[in-house]
Amino acid sequence: DLPLTLIAGPCQMESREHAFEMAGRLKEICGRVGIGLVYKTSFDKANRTSLSGRRGLGLESALPVFADLRKEFGFPVLTDVHEREQCADLAEVVDILQIPAFLCRQTDLLVAAAKTGRVVNVKKGQFLAPWDMQYSLAKVVDSGNPNVLLTERGASFGYNTLVSDMRSLPIMAATGAPIVFDATHSVQQPGGQGGSSGGDRAFVPVLARAAVAVGVAAVFIETHQDPDNAPSDGPNMVPLDRMEDLLTQLMAFDRLAKAR
Amino acid sequence: DLPLTLIAGPCQMESREHAFEMAGRLKEICGRVGIGLVYKTSFDKANRTSLSGRRGLGLESALPVFADLRKEFGFPVLTDVHEREQCADLAEVVDILQIPAFLCRQTDLLVAAAKTGRVVNVKKGQFLAPWDMQYSLAKVVDSGNPNVLLTERGASFGYNTLVSDMRSLPIMAATGAPIVFDATHSVQQPGGQGGSSGGDRAFVPVLARAAVAVGVAAVFIETHQDPDNAPSDGPNMVPLDRMEDLLTQLMAFDRLAKAR
Amino acid sequence: DLPLTLIAGPCQMESREHAFEMAGRLKEICGRVGIGLVYKTSFDKANRTSLSGRRGLGLESALPVFADLRKEFGFPVLTDVHEREQCADLAEVVDILQIPAFLCRQTDLLVAAAKTGRVVNVKKGQFLAPWDMQYSLAKVVDSGNPNVLLTERGASFGYNTLVSDMRSLPIMAATGAPIVFDATHSVQQPGGQGGSSGGDRAFVPVLARAAVAVGVAAVFIETHQDPDNAPSDGPNMVPLDRMEDLLTQLMAFDRLAKAR
Amino acid sequence: DLPLTLIAGPCQMESREHAFEMAGRLKEICGRVGIGLVYKTSFDKANRTSLSGRRGLGLESALPVFADLRKEFGFPVLTDVHEREQCADLAEVVDILQIPAFLCRQTDLLVAAAKTGRVVNVKKGQFLAPWDMQYSLAKVVDSGNPNVLLTERGASFGYNTLVSDMRSLPIMAATGAPIVFDATHSVQQPGGQGGSSGGDRAFVPVLARAAVAVGVAAVFIETHQDPDNAPSDGPNMVPLDRMEDLLTQLMAFDRLAKAR
Repeated sequence: DLPLTLIAGPCQMESREHAFEMAGRLKEICGRVGIGLVYKTSFDKANRTSLSGRRGLGLESALPVFADLRKEFGFPVLTDVHEREQCADLAEVVDILQIPAFLCRQTDLLVAAAKTGRVVNVKKGQFLAPWDMQYSLAKVVDSGNPNVLLTERGASFGYNTLVSDMRSLPIMAATGAPIVFDATHSVQQPGGQGGSSGGDRAFVPVLARAAVAVGVAAVFIETHQDPDNAPSDGPNMVPLDRMEDLLTQLMAFDRLAKAR
Repeated sequence: DLPLTLIAGPCQMESREHAFEMAGRLKEICGRVGIGLVYKTSFDKANRTSLSGRRGLGLESALPVFADLRKEFGFPVLTDVHEREQCADLAEVVDILQIPAFLCRQTDLLVAAAKTGRVVNVKKGQFLAPWDMQYSLAKVVDSGNPNVLLTERGASFGYNTLVSDMRSLPIMAATGAPIVFDATHSVQQPGGQGGSSGGDRAFVPVLARAAVAVGVAAVFIETHQDPDNAPSDGPNMVPLDRMEDLLTQLMAFDRLAKAR
Repeated sequence: DLPLTLIAGPCQMESREHAFEMAGRLKEICGRVGIGLVYKTSFDKANRTSLSGRRGLGLESALPVFADLRKEFGFPVLTDVHEREQCADLAEVVDILQIPAFLCRQTDLLVAAAKTGRVVNVKKGQFLAPWDMQYSLAKVVDSGNPNVLLTERGASFGYNTLVSDMRSLPIMAATGAPIVFDATHSVQQPGGQGGSSGGDRAFVPVLARAAVAVGVAAVFIETHQDPDNAPSDGPNMVPLDRMEDLLTQLMAFDRLAKAR
Repeated sequence: DLPLTLIAGPCQMESREHAFEMAGRLKEICGRVGIGLVYKTSFDKANRTSLSGRRGLGLESALPVFADLRKEFGFPVLTDVHEREQCADLAEVVDILQIPAFLCRQTDLLVAAAKTGRVVNVKKGQFLAPWDMQYSLAKVVDSGNPNVLLTERGASFGYNTLVSDMRSLPIMAATGAPIVFDATHSVQQPGGQGGSSGGDRAFVPVLARAAVAVGVAAVFIETHQDPDNAPSDGPNMVPLDRMEDLLTQLMAFDRLAKAR
C-alpha cells in the first residue's frame, strides 16, 4: 500500500509555454504537499463533441515537449493514445500510455500500447461493468506487458449523466492492478451543451475524498490556472490555486485509509 | 458538525428477547467506540418480496418492546411507519419515525409523521433525484415539524441493482437537514432472487467509508448476530462481531472529515 | 387475444361536472373508433410533488360520482387506491382497483385490494425489474383473487427520466396476466420542476404504437380537454381532440399485432 | 417515406464460401418478402471481449470478397470500419461505411469515412443521448458528405444491460437523417460472460416490431444459419430460417406505420 499518487495536469497541451508553466507550478505544489506527481496532458482531443472544438498541439509538435518536460522536471509523464500507430513514438517520450474510456475494448490499440512496454492506463468505459475490466486488462497482460493501471471515471446513468460507483474500486482492485480514480471526468456531464460537454467541478473534492477513503493507488485530477477559459473540460477542471488544499486533504484520507 | 451518529440494529424485531440481546450488545460496542447510538428495528416489513416472507412482531406486540428498550438502555429508538394510523401510537414509544424509500412521496404519511412532533427520517426513493428530496422535506416542515433527517440509500441503476451517488450527500445537505447514509440498503440487490431481495455485505464498509469521508451526520447499518439466518436483509447485514472494527474506522474518517 | 382496450380519462376527478363531461366525450370517441373503454380517474393524488399540488375531490365526494358515472355510461371504472381502508368502499362503486407504482410492493394494500374481489391493476414500480412483478401478482392471487392486470409505466433511467423497456411487455405477459401499457406516465419526467413533475406528451403516440405493435391487452392514456391547464400531469396528457386519431392508429396496429 | 429496408447478414465474414452462401439465401428471402436488402458483414471484430475471440477474415482477405459479393448479387454492401486508414480501401468495394457505437465520437474516423463519399452509418454510442447524435452527424456532413444514416442500438442501463428507448427514433429523425434500428445489438447483454458478450434473440422480433411501428427507414438484423455455433454475437443473431416470417411481419407493420 504505497502512498497516494497524483496524476494531474491541464486537459490538453495548449502550448509549450503553457505546459511548462503548469508543470512547474504543479511540481511545487506537490512538493509542498508531499505527493508524487505524474504529469498528464493530451496532445490531441480526438473525440470532441464538435469539429470546431480545439484539439491540442497535435502529435508531431507534442513529442519534443513531452521529452523536455520529462527531462526538465524529472516526473513521469502520461498521455492518451487514440490510434495504434501513435503508440511507438509516444513511448519514446512518455512513461504511461492511457487508453481512453471509449476505446477500452479496442483490441489493436490495447495490444499496440502493451507492446511498447510502457505502463498502460486503461480507463473503464462508461458502458462497462467493473468486473468486465478484467478482459481489457488481460488483453494487455497477455500481450506481454504486466504493467497496467485501471481507472474508474464514471458509468452512464441515464442521459448526459455519469455516476461513480465506489464499489468498482475494490472490484477492479481484485484483479491485482493498481486503481486510479479520475475525479475530473467522473463529474462530467457528457454530451452536447451547445456543442461541448459540461460538468460540475464542485463535486471533484467530494468524489475524490470518497474514492481515497475507499482506497486507491492514485487520483487523477485535471487542473488549469483558468479553467473557465480552458479549451476543453473547463467545467470540471479544478483551479490550480485550489489544488494544494485539496491534495492536503486527500493525503490525510489516504494515510488513514492505508493505516490498517 | 457534530460527531458521527450510528443508527443500527437488526432489520426486524424478531422477539423481545432478540431485541434486548442485540440492543445490549450494540450499546456496549458503541460505548467502547465512543459513538452515539440510535437503535433501529422494524416492527413490520411491509413490502417483502413475497407473502411468505416473515414480517416481524407487528405493531401491537412491538409497542411495549420499544418503550422498554428506550427505558432500559436510554438510547433514542427509530422505527419505520407504513400507514398514517401507525404514527401516533409509535410516537409515544420511539424518537424517530422513518418514512420508507418507496413511500417518500406519500403526502398523508409524511404529514401524519410530521404532526407527531417526533423527528422524521425520510429515506430517498430509489426513483428520486437528490435535489427532489427538498419536496419531501417541505411536506414535513410545512406541516409544522422542522426536525427532519434525509437518508441516502441508493438509486435504481438498471434492473436489480442500486448505485450510491456520493454527490447526493452534499446536494441533500444543502437543504439544511442532517444527512444519513444507509450503508445496508445501498448494497441491496433489489428484487426477487427466488422470492427475496439479495445484497452483498462486503460493500457496506466500502460505501460507509466513502460517505463518511464526504461528510454525513449519521450512518445507518443493520446488524445481526447471525445474518445468514436472519429473516430479512440477511445478505446485506453486517455480523455484529464485525461492527466494532468498522465503527472504529468510520469514527476516524469522521474526525478527519469534520476537522476542517 | 381480445382486441385492444382503452383505459382513459382525466388524471384527477376535478368535479362531478368535469368527470361527466369527459366521460361523455370519451364514450363517443371510443364508440366511433370501436374500442372498449375503461374510464379512469383519481379521487386523490396522494403523492404530489408538493403539499400545494391539487389532489382531487377526495374519497367521500368521489364515491357517488363513481357510482353515477358507471350507471350513466355503462362502462367499467378504474381508480387508484393508496391505503387499505379505501379498498372496500371503492370496490362498491368501481370495477378495477389500481395499485400505484410506488406502492406495488406494499403487501397490505395488495391484499386489501385483492380481498374485494375486484380486478386489481398493479402498476410496475419505476424501481422494479419486469420479472419481479410476478411477486406482486402472487400477493394478489395468493389472497384468492386471480383477476390481476399488470401495467408497464417506465423504469428509472438516471435522474428525472424514465425509459420504457418494451421487453417488459412479453416478460410480464409470461405470468399469464393481461398487460397494460401506460403511455401517459411513461413519458413523465419525474421530480420537481418548480414543484411538480414534467413530461412530454409528444412521445405518447410513439410509445403507444410501439407497445401495441409488441402486443398488449390495453393501453392507458390520460386525456383532458385542456391539458395545459389541468391540475396534474398536464404535460403528459393527450388533448381530448387528438384522441380519436390516435386510437384509430392504435386499433390498426393492434389488429395487425393480433392477426397472427 | 420509402418502404422499410433490411440491413442483414452474418455478424462476421467467416469465409468466402460462408459469405456467398448467406448472401444467396438472404437475397432469396428478401425477394420473396419484397424488402430491399443491404448485405452487412464485418471483416474484423475489433473489440471482442477477449484476445482469443475470433475476429473474422481481416481486411486484405475481405476486400475481394466484398467486391465479388456486390458484383454477384447486385445489392449494396455495408461493413464497419475501426481505423481511418481502412476507409479508402473499403470505399472501393462497399457502399456503406459503418462507424461502431464505441467510436461514434472519434472525429478522425468520422472524417475519414466522410471523405470517401460513401454513405456513412453512425451507430449511437451506448453512452450517448439521442439528441447528441446531431454532433456526430455534423462531423460527417461538415466534412462534405450529406449521406448519413443514424442507428439506434441500445443505451447503457445499469451493468451488462442495454435498454432501447423508442423515443430516440423520432428524436434522431428530427436531424433529417434516415434512422436505422439495430435489433440485434439492442438485445445484447454487453460484457463478459466467461469472456464474450451474451444476449437474447427472443427479443429481436419484439424490439423490431416496436421500432418499425414507431417508424424507421431500415432495420438491422444479424442472422446466421446456425447462430449457436457462430463465432460472435450468436446469442442475439436470428436463425436464417426464421427471417422470412419476421420480415413479413415487419413489412406489414411498416406499411401501416407509413400509410398516414
